[in-house]
Amino acid sequence: MTSPWPKPGTPFSDILTPMPVIDEDRVVANIARAQAYMTKHGKNFRPHIKTHKIPAVAQQQLDEGAVGINCQKVTEAEVFADAGFDDILITYNVLGAPRLARLKALHARVPKLTVVADSTVTVDGLAAAFAGGLPIAVLVECDTGGARCGVQSPADAAALAKHIAQTGGVRFDGLLTYPSVDGASKVETFMKDTLDLLSEAGIDCPVRSNGGSPDLFSAHLVPSATEHRAGTYVYSDRSMVRAGECTVDDIAMHVLATVVSRPTPTRAVLDAGSKALTSDLLGFTDHGEIVELPGARIVSLSEEHAVVDLSHCAVAAPAVGAQVRVIPNHTCVVSNLFDRVVFHRSGVVTRVEAVAARGTVW
Amino acid sequence: MTSPWPKPGTPFSDILTPMPVIDEDRVVANIARAQAYMTKHGKNFRPHIKTHKIPAVAQQQLDEGAVGINCQKVTEAEVFADAGFDDILITYNVLGAPRLARLKALHARVPKLTVVADSTVTVDGLAAAFAGGLPIAVLVECDTGGARCGVQSPADAAALAKHIAQTGGVRFDGLLTYPSVDGASKVETFMKDTLDLLSEAGIDCPVRSNGGSPDLFSAHLVPSATEHRAGTYVYSDRSMVRAGECTVDDIAMHVLATVVSRPTPTRAVLDAGSKALTSDLLGFTDHGEIVELPGARIVSLSEEHAVVDLSHCAVAAPAVGAQVRVIPNHTCVVSNLFDRVVFHRSGVVTRVEAVAARGTVW
Repeated sequence: MTSPWPKPGTPFSDILTPMPVIDEDRVVANIARAQAYMTKHGKNFRPHIKTHKIPAVAQQQLDEGAVGINCQKVTEAEVFADAGFDDILITYNVLGAPRLARLKALHARVPKLTVVADSTVTVDGLAAAFAGGLPIAVLVECDTGGARCGVQSPADAAALAKHIAQTGGVRFDGLLTYPSVDGASKVETFMKDTLDLLSEAGIDCPVRSNGGSPDLFSAHLVPSATEHRAGTYVYSDRSMVRAGECTVDDIAMHVLATVVSRPTPTRAVLDAGSKALTSDLLGFTDHGEIVELPGARIVSLSEEHAVVDLSHCAVAAPAVGAQVRVIPNHTCVVSNLFDRVVFHRSGVVTRVEAVAARGTVW
Repeated sequence: MTSPWPKPGTPFSDILTPMPVIDEDRVVANIARAQAYMTKHGKNFRPHIKTHKIPAVAQQQLDEGAVGINCQKVTEAEVFADAGFDDILITYNVLGAPRLARLKALHARVPKLTVVADSTVTVDGLAAAFAGGLPIAVLVECDTGGARCGVQSPADAAALAKHIAQTGGVRFDGLLTYPSVDGASKVETFMKDTLDLLSEAGIDCPVRSNGGSPDLFSAHLVPSATEHRAGTYVYSDRSMVRAGECTVDDIAMHVLATVVSRPTPTRAVLDAGSKALTSDLLGFTDHGEIVELPGARIVSLSEEHAVVDLSHCAVAAPAVGAQVRVIPNHTCVVSNLFDRVVFHRSGVVTRVEAVAARGTVW
C-alpha cells in the first residue's frame, strides 16, 4: 500500500489528514530561546524528550547547549541510548524485577544514567539490582506542591538521601522536583531547606533539578536549582500560550485536518478525533483551537471525528473538503499517537521523522 | 533489547506494566452473547474492529456469525483486507484525492466494500473517483440525534439517495446511523420515514444499518434496521457497565499497573498514565476504576502517572510495588496506544497479538 507519509516538497494540500505538522523554523527558534535564557541564568538545561520522542530533535537541543536529556521510562531511554545519547535522566521510580533488569542493562552501556526515588522501597530495589557493580545515580524526588510523586518534606528528603548515601549499589546525586503552577518560591524553599539539612549531615548534593515548560522562564526564580527540565516548549501548544510562556506564533505543532461533514449551518466535523488530538483537556473545556476558524469550538471528540460548533465563528463557515490547522491542547500526547510526524517550512514538507520512542511506556 | 511482551505461560506478576490484558474467556462470551441476541432478533451483525484492531479477534466475531466488519478509516480497512477480510463497511465520508485513490485501490481487491456519505460533495468525489469502473456502494449517513455527521431529515436522506441513484460510479445501498443515547425510537422514526419516501421514489434500500454498543441490546427496538454495528462490547469497559449493557464481570480488558509511589497516606501513584489509559472521560469525572481498590479514585493523569486518591478506599492502602488492574473508562482508545496486547486466561498469558490497525487514522 502507498505510504501515508508525504515526500519532501509535498505541499499541505496533498497531505493525508489528520497529520501532525511541525514548523522547522519555530522549533529552531523555541530551542534557541529556551537555551539562551538558561545560559544567561547559569542553569544547566535538560530537555525532556517526551514531547518529540525523536533523536534528531534531541540532537538539535544538545547542539544548542543542553547538557543531556530527560526520559520518563526505561524503554524510552533505551531508544535514545540506541541513537547514541550518553547522558540520560529517567525521572521515574523504577520498580520490579523485569524493569530493574532492563535498567541495569541500559546502565551498562550508558554510565551517565540517573534515576529518581521517593521511597526506601525504590532505593532498596535499585540497591539490590546494582549491588556489586557500578552504582546507579539517584536523585530524591520531592513533592513541592505538584501533588504527584515525591517525598513530602525537606526532612523526608534528607532522610532518604542519607539512606541512599549509606546503601551500596546506589549513589546520591541530588534533588529533583516537578513544581506546582507558579511554584518557584515553594521549590526554592524546599530545596534550600533540604540543602541545609544535607550540609549539616555532610552529604554533598551536586544536582538540584527543577522542571516544567510552564515554569521554564521562571527558572531564575529558583537560585538553589542547578538544572531545569522541560519538554513541551520545543513544539509548544495551547496550554503554553495560556500559561503566558509563548504566543500562538511560537507554536510549532499543528494537526492538519479536513472538514468531512457540515451537517448543519453551525456544525462542522473534522477528520481529527481523539486518535489524532487525544482527549487531554489540561483544564480547557474544548479540544483545541482551529487557526482558520477563530471563535469556533471543538466541542466533542470521538475517535476519528471532531465536532465543531461554528455558532461564534468569526469567519465564513468552511466548506466540506476544506483543510484546517488545529492547535492541540497538549502537544506531547499527540506525538505519541503517530508513528511519524511531518516537518515543514511554510507549508512545504522538509522531512518526515519516525517518532522513535512512541509507545514506550515501560 | 529484550522484548517487553511476555511469552505464553507468563503470570501477571512477571509482566512489565502498564499492560493491557484481555481475558480470553470473557471475549468469547461477549462475542457469543451479542451474536446470539442479533441472531434471535433477525439482525445482521457487523462488529466494528476499532475496539480491538486485531484480525484474529475479528475472525472470532465472523466465526460466530457476523456478516462482515466495520472500519472507520480507509487505512484501517487496508489492514483487514491484507488479512483476508472481504466484506468491509467504512463508516466515513471519504474525501480528497489522496484518500480517494487509496479507496479505489482497496475496492479493486475488496469488491464488497461500502462507504457512507452525508453530502453531495462526498458523493460527487466518490463518483468522480469511481467513474467508468465498478461502482462503489454508498450508505447515506443520517443524524438521528447523535449530533455528529449525517443528513438532518428523512427528506434530506431521500434527496441524497436519489442523487446517488442518478450518479455514475456510486451505488445507493441504504441508510446508516449512529444513534443518540437511548435513541432507538428516533432511529426507527427516521428510518421508517425515509423508507417511505424512497419507496415512493421507487428506490430500493436494502441496507439499514444502526449502531453502537450502548444500543446493542436495544437493536430489536428498531424494526426497520437490517443490521447493527458495535465495537466496544467485545472487550467492554466502565462506560458499558454504566450503560447497563454488562456487569464488571463481563469486562475483558484491564490495564495492569503498578503502584510506584505512596507519597501520602491517602495518595498512591500508578505507572499507568494517559499514554496507557488515555484521557477519555466519557462523562466520568475520574480516569477508571481499580479492581483491587474499591472506592479509590484516579483523580488525575499525566503521561506516565495516575494519581489515586485513597481517601474513600474501602480496603487497606496498597504498598509501593503492588500490582493492580484498572478498568478503563473507554477500551477502544487503549488498544490504539499499544503495538500489541496480551491475552490471558486466569492471569496466565495465552497469546500476544499485534494491534495490527493501531495508528491507522487516514
